[in-house]
Amino acid sequence: MTELIDPKLFSDDVMMKKFRFIVELDKLKMVFRRTLLLDKSRTENDAEHSWEMATMALVLHSYAEPGTDLLRVLKMLLIHDLVEIDAGDTYVYDRVGIRDQPERESAAASRIFGLLEDPEGAELHALWREFEDRITPEARFARALDRLQPLFHNYCTAGQVWRQNAIKASQVRQAMQVIREGSATLGLFADRLIDASVEEGYLATSDEG
Amino acid sequence: MTELIDPKLFSDDVMMKKFRFIVELDKLKMVFRRTLLLDKSRTENDAEHSWEMATMALVLHSYAEPGTDLLRVLKMLLIHDLVEIDAGDTYVYDRVGIRDQPERESAAASRIFGLLEDPEGAELHALWREFEDRITPEARFARALDRLQPLFHNYCTAGQVWRQNAIKASQVRQAMQVIREGSATLGLFADRLIDASVEEGYLATSDEG
Repeated sequence: MTELIDPKLFSDDVMMKKFRFIVELDKLKMVFRRTLLLDKSRTENDAEHSWEMATMALVLHSYAEPGTDLLRVLKMLLIHDLVEIDAGDTYVYDRVGIRDQPERESAAASRIFGLLEDPEGAELHALWREFEDRITPEARFARALDRLQPLFHNYCTAGQVWRQNAIKASQVRQAMQVIREGSATLGLFADRLIDASVEEGYLATSDEG
Repeated sequence: MTELIDPKLFSDDVMMKKFRFIVELDKLKMVFRRTLLLDKSRTENDAEHSWEMATMALVLHSYAEPGTDLLRVLKMLLIHDLVEIDAGDTYVYDRVGIRDQPERESAAASRIFGLLEDPEGAELHALWREFEDRITPEARFARALDRLQPLFHNYCTAGQVWRQNAIKASQVRQAMQVIREGSATLGLFADRLIDASVEEGYLATSDEG
């Protein structure tokens, strides 16, 4: 696409590369996730999801560990799903898909962040890796939000996607540990959402004995 | 929607209000703009647009006035279009729609940011107002990006939306002054995009004499 733009329009190569990256962003609007919109009219795409995550961070930041740097959280959330342009969205409960997910996503990160000149490309690549590694407080909080959002949407849409995919409460409890590890308060909220989902019949418990 | 959630699931009223605001966010995914996706398959919605804006800011921040606070830019860009949940998207060249746009959007801001407890609600409301007022370097840069993105999409899609709406080069030049006032480098880029659009026949000049 940017190949079609006369290079003379850009001030220099660095700028041209920035816009090559920006052209790439548009593709995230076509990567669809399992999560339903709250009105159940359709599933959301990764661009919408990334925006919702970042905006959630603005209002839930008070539940992060003290000292968590909001700017770094926002940067991570804005770019965390770009790898899915190449690698596609892998459902968190997809036991086959997750096997080669790290390899597929690492290759995608190299290609996509490599569109930018360093140090910018390297900075975003490192932030993506930090998000994946889930060690720093910023990464743990960002990952907590990334798990909480679909849980919240599932609860609000009466578990339709869970039921369609025969997801059990035990699977959800395991996947949602990530929330507790990123925010104690949001972890408790997630537990209550799961308990309520079981009570309401949104989530089956049949494999829990 | 949150009315349907048992208040006992939330730790307190402040948290319940945060999630009432988060539920509201979902509606931005249903507010469609004039801007086409780069593959021309459909127009984009405000949630996707807001994400693209914020992510563009990460890589174009070096073109802002020195000292521009990226965190405040990101906050503004993430929430700048929330008022359109109530007020709808007003096309920048819509001479009728822009007449009562400030009133419609002010009322929307009061309702939507008022869903949150203060000081959070007041902070986001003030950031939205700052974005609209376009005085601070952060607001000027954020507004520049908000104008540059549709210009860039229009150029990349051969001016299809301009032609459908009979938009003239003089109108675009006037609307794009906002870019120059937010970033000298991006202002020059915008000028080159407009000139190239006229040369390529994407944009008509008939009313320019």
